[in-house]
Amino acid sequence: MMTLAGNLHINESRFREDFQRLTRDGATPDGGLNRPALSIAHLAARETFQDMIWQRGFTARSDLAGNLSACHYPSMQTKPVLMLGSHLDSVKDGGRFDGTLGVAAAFEVLQVLREHGLDRPLEVMDFTDEEGTWVSLMGSRAISGQLTRKDLTNPRGDLETFQRVLQRAGLSISGILSAKRNAEDLCAYLELHIEQGTRLEKSRTDIGIVTGMVGIHMYLVTFSGQANHAGTTLMSERHDAALGASKFCLMVQETVTERFPNCVATVGRMDFSPGTFNIVAGQVTVFMELRTEDAERAEELQQALYEAAEHSAKMFDLGIDFQHLESVTERRMHPTVIEAFEAGVSALGFSSRRLPSLAGHDAQSMARLCRSGLIFVPSAGGFSHSSREYTCWEDCVNGANVLLNAARQLVASF
Amino acid sequence: MMTLAGNLHINESRFREDFQRLTRDGATPDGGLNRPALSIAHLAARETFQDMIWQRGFTARSDLAGNLSACHYPSMQTKPVLMLGSHLDSVKDGGRFDGTLGVAAAFEVLQVLREHGLDRPLEVMDFTDEEGTWVSLMGSRAISGQLTRKDLTNPRGDLETFQRVLQRAGLSISGILSAKRNAEDLCAYLELHIEQGTRLEKSRTDIGIVTGMVGIHMYLVTFSGQANHAGTTLMSERHDAALGASKFCLMVQETVTERFPNCVATVGRMDFSPGTFNIVAGQVTVFMELRTEDAERAEELQQALYEAAEHSAKMFDLGIDFQHLESVTERRMHPTVIEAFEAGVSALGFSSRRLPSLAGHDAQSMARLCRSGLIFVPSAGGFSHSSREYTCWEDCVNGANVLLNAARQLVASF
Repeated sequence: MMTLAGNLHINESRFREDFQRLTRDGATPDGGLNRPALSIAHLAARETFQDMIWQRGFTARSDLAGNLSACHYPSMQTKPVLMLGSHLDSVKDGGRFDGTLGVAAAFEVLQVLREHGLDRPLEVMDFTDEEGTWVSLMGSRAISGQLTRKDLTNPRGDLETFQRVLQRAGLSISGILSAKRNAEDLCAYLELHIEQGTRLEKSRTDIGIVTGMVGIHMYLVTFSGQANHAGTTLMSERHDAALGASKFCLMVQETVTERFPNCVATVGRMDFSPGTFNIVAGQVTVFMELRTEDAERAEELQQALYEAAEHSAKMFDLGIDFQHLESVTERRMHPTVIEAFEAGVSALGFSSRRLPSLAGHDAQSMARLCRSGLIFVPSAGGFSHSSREYTCWEDCVNGANVLLNAARQLVASF
Repeated sequence: MMTLAGNLHINESRFREDFQRLTRDGATPDGGLNRPALSIAHLAARETFQDMIWQRGFTARSDLAGNLSACHYPSMQTKPVLMLGSHLDSVKDGGRFDGTLGVAAAFEVLQVLREHGLDRPLEVMDFTDEEGTWVSLMGSRAISGQLTRKDLTNPRGDLETFQRVLQRAGLSISGILSAKRNAEDLCAYLELHIEQGTRLEKSRTDIGIVTGMVGIHMYLVTFSGQANHAGTTLMSERHDAALGASKFCLMVQETVTERFPNCVATVGRMDFSPGTFNIVAGQVTVFMELRTEDAERAEELQQALYEAAEHSAKMFDLGIDFQHLESVTERRMHPTVIEAFEAGVSALGFSSRRLPSLAGHDAQSMARLCRSGLIFVPSAGGFSHSSREYTCWEDCVNGANVLLNAARQLVASF
């Protein structure tokens, strides 16, 4: 692959100003962001981004999945589009850098490339619901044709609320299913994101170049006992679902820690029914998520946790329902893009390492549609999905510059 | 104490019809009742009861705490009132007999006593929120002067919702605080209730005569860790509040079972924050309730569970907040009333035993105001606060007849 002489550099002050502007809507007092996909705060952030797109003289495009993009399509150009992007939505009570930094960086790269008279179609994407408030990676899976009607009619939360929220955003399930784009129209997709972990910080590395994403598997594990009076039901007479769920939660942690060193499993929530002080829990539903580097390992872990759930239920004489809810399969990043990132890193004199992503990202959906790549910048202390999430500004700028030079090199090579 | 020759008997078919009518509002498909205090279904049940009061030619009275009563006040009478009653509210997804059976039985007793020309002031009470959907034993604590403004401004759920619900029912916090009645105006309070346990059924006893109620103590135990990304935060780097809460839940059960044989403790709910699949829980709040026969034992148990909470928090490097929310202190039933019940039991040829109540009842609030007594009828299988709650009709009738004859004897003795 040819490389061009001389490096480009982003406009730091403009980049910083844009990032600050894009992190205002839904900002929380503790310095975090609270804008779950399609919430009022999230829609406000998109309006802010749309204003920025217009002000800078780009075309704003909003597709049937709600994805908002800034387009630079030279009228005499027929070559495929280079796409860059990330997402403006956050988890509930999340941080400022997760997603929004990638959108701001991509938008800055777009402006620099246009300033340098790059005569190629470019598009900067803000994908819908990357975090899966409703359906994980919804926007990027929609345009890469990886969403089924079943995915959309079984959202997190309930369908009716989801549909009301879609309606408010001017969207619909049928529309989202029609948002697919053609592979021939795209040459590559590039994304910058924070690591959300400590591997870069601990190894003092500037840039992480992602080789692929882990698979994510979600389960609802329900323990069923007998709802009963919390005073008159003797301890010995109880079928208390709370005990099975609690035992299971501890076994999940033990199992993964002791037998599955490279995997993670999380119990992020338990719903008690009826759920009051004075009634023994008749039913408790455990919300569990697993992440593994390959499908085979996922199978083994799922089996081990299924046995743990059965064991916990038997211990307290409870019924059990182990329901696999949803999976996002692991995905490899494209070698050409990985090389372009590494060329950019070395041209700019930064340090980098290849590593797998333990989180899901839009780049993994896009890998189904075109050459896809992702870089990480360090996360201080590894805090993520939390208001304590932080990346120092120098690292943000370094990442944006790598993204810029990799993009420039890629378009030159197609 | 004198006893009168001959026993009175209730009108079975009328009693049955009234009970069925009073269990229609808020009935669930599985044969249970869902009418938390001041819910639409509960207010509907009260309207039904008010219609019955009018139809049978009694005066309906609704006090400032929302307590609804059927009054028979002979105009030439100055003697203190004999009060009977229970409650029409249920827990969320509760049973048909808890409370409503006692109201129906008391109303039947009222009608029989009037038919027999009893020239004494009688009142049948339906107390507000016995179950503590908002404030436990609210109605009976209000008329016995045991509610503070603090009790009412710290309801379960949030204050604003509570106030909106009060407004819908035509009530207010200041009003509830003004609902106290005078001890001199009451001679005694009698109540019939289902046991909600298995002691009577297992010992094949017709009637349980309650000696006193256990104390009830409620706590919110909050474990604080660090909310973080469920994929990128390695298991070894987590401060997962779910683990501390789960460990604590299991320790509560072990501690009570092994060291406090006559007590019960329940974890009826856990609230996870932020509470989603893909975020390690930053905070989990455990809703815990204890019941003990005496205050000293309660102190010991609370101390033991506090240590269990500290241990669980330390195990997973979490912060802990152990908050005592509310207590209902234990209370003795009045010997005169106990004797009247026993006289009624033997006159009718039933079997009975004295036993403490492991549940809270309006009779315990009333004990602060006048001579108070409570009888139990058997609960099949001990199911309670559940749609499986059941008492065979013969036991219901027997209980009502004991209530009738005890009431008749008591009024004769004052």
